[in-house]
Amino acid sequence: MPMQYLFTNIIGAFVLDDKFHIVDSIPFIGNEYEFKTKTENRLRDKHKNLIPLPVEKYVQASSIFKDPKYAKEFFQKNLVITKQAIKDAVNEDNLIIQTVSNLNELDKTSNMLTKRLREWFSLYLPEFSQVVQNHEKFVELVTSLSKKELMKDIGITKTMGADLEEVHVNQILLLGKEIETLYKLRAQHEAYLQKIMKKYCPNLLELAGATIGAKLLELGKGLKRVALLPASTVQLLGAEKALFRHLKTGSRSPKYGVIFQHPLIQKSKKKDRGRMARSLADKLSLCARLDFFKGEFKAKEYRGMLEVKMNSR
Amino acid sequence: MPMQYLFTNIIGAFVLDDKFHIVDSIPFIGNEYEFKTKTENRLRDKHKNLIPLPVEKYVQASSIFKDPKYAKEFFQKNLVITKQAIKDAVNEDNLIIQTVSNLNELDKTSNMLTKRLREWFSLYLPEFSQVVQNHEKFVELVTSLSKKELMKDIGITKTMGADLEEVHVNQILLLGKEIETLYKLRAQHEAYLQKIMKKYCPNLLELAGATIGAKLLELGKGLKRVALLPASTVQLLGAEKALFRHLKTGSRSPKYGVIFQHPLIQKSKKKDRGRMARSLADKLSLCARLDFFKGEFKAKEYRGMLEVKMNSR
Repeated sequence: MPMQYLFTNIIGAFVLDDKFHIVDSIPFIGNEYEFKTKTENRLRDKHKNLIPLPVEKYVQASSIFKDPKYAKEFFQKNLVITKQAIKDAVNEDNLIIQTVSNLNELDKTSNMLTKRLREWFSLYLPEFSQVVQNHEKFVELVTSLSKKELMKDIGITKTMGADLEEVHVNQILLLGKEIETLYKLRAQHEAYLQKIMKKYCPNLLELAGATIGAKLLELGKGLKRVALLPASTVQLLGAEKALFRHLKTGSRSPKYGVIFQHPLIQKSKKKDRGRMARSLADKLSLCARLDFFKGEFKAKEYRGMLEVKMNSR
Repeated sequence: MPMQYLFTNIIGAFVLDDKFHIVDSIPFIGNEYEFKTKTENRLRDKHKNLIPLPVEKYVQASSIFKDPKYAKEFFQKNLVITKQAIKDAVNEDNLIIQTVSNLNELDKTSNMLTKRLREWFSLYLPEFSQVVQNHEKFVELVTSLSKKELMKDIGITKTMGADLEEVHVNQILLLGKEIETLYKLRAQHEAYLQKIMKKYCPNLLELAGATIGAKLLELGKGLKRVALLPASTVQLLGAEKALFRHLKTGSRSPKYGVIFQHPLIQKSKKKDRGRMARSLADKLSLCARLDFFKGEFKAKEYRGMLEVKMNSR
């Protein structure tokens, strides 16, 4: 008795002869593909000589399905599956990446607008902008105090600023109020980021902090990939430009990417920072792995080890 | 009788002999400098041979005031005058320039944040961003309608977007609401700009519109300078880069700067735009002059002339 192939795909289970003609078939209805073994067994009972189609013959066998009779169904079922796959593909990674990108943009925005506010407000009270360097503080004071109160605050009784009418000052304050809401939004987003990271990657959150942790996920394109990256790559995430310059021109290799902002590196002495970055990246990499493979919570322990290391130098 | 010089400056009126020694003086108290003629006349009555100090002898005479006795007072009075001058230097030009710069930055900001909103929201309902291209409309709909309503709006019943929990959707909507307030602020600033320009430069406002008019003032550094610029320069304000490229490399000369956005140019046929730009810049220049020298309101008339010109082609 000649050999027959069993070929199962999303539209049904097919029995093919050695010339790749369809001998028998059971089409799938609805989501039957997910329980294909049942259907396959029915065919196996009927045709005794069935073997699964070898992989190298897939291309030949597939050509059957160019027939419009199957092609349309193939296309539609594929579409449904793909759409579902896209739907299912959204996970915490995407949410975290969107949130941290948005935080970056909110920072850019409020910086730009605060600079404008400083310049604009300086027509009114130029002495104030110099004294209060912190952007957020500046916005807060300008929007909440009167010109007299501000002058008293910085200890001056006369100003070079113009005595603008209320209609003009109001416009400046409207901008200030807007910037305040941007700062508030940033705080809300950051609290949210903490919250989802606490669930999704508690180790990474604990050791890296929300901002650096999320940036690592952004640069590494998700927790899975960060978990699979070597620690030395984690160390340099965010330093790609300097790394390629190093590779191309032989300039000194970078020692850290976004982890440079980490308190453990910031608090280290300058000459120890390279070594510290390597140790930190090591532990961060372990954290990502623990989080991805649903391991235990060890980040506090790691942090302790790193702190001991820092203080022993 | 020997010649004596009368030399008046901010600290007082002085009578000098021909060796530049002080013979007599009356110091100014408070703002007496502003009424100096009165003081000078008192000295003229006392000293009959007084002539005003010739300009070429100012340097010699000024050396007297290096004496610490005068120098300190000189310095202090100068400081007061300078501060007052700075205070007085703030005029509508500054307010308009700050406002229009701010409008530009608000535009940049809301563009950047809306792009982020589109990307973020597309995790939830990707089909919607493609259908609604207009940024402001997109933000308005997303913040005011539910997912179901939005899907109905664009006529779909299934989406590839993930079924996000409320905690995630809320963060996206917070960003949307923030962008809405940015759009509102922009509208308020623009109304304000209209209002001050209506008073300060009604002709320019009428013919150029608030945005282009204010940009011309920004690029031309104030109404006075715009009024004194040749019309051909007004035509090219905002096209400096292209102009210098033209001068340097001999590429084609630019035909318009910011006035390119003007409806009269936009509505003209492509081949007529250069000529239209020249005529428009001519009239805009006249408008700026009328406004600066407090002339009559002629912008409507000019607009009519330009429209006739456009339609006659």
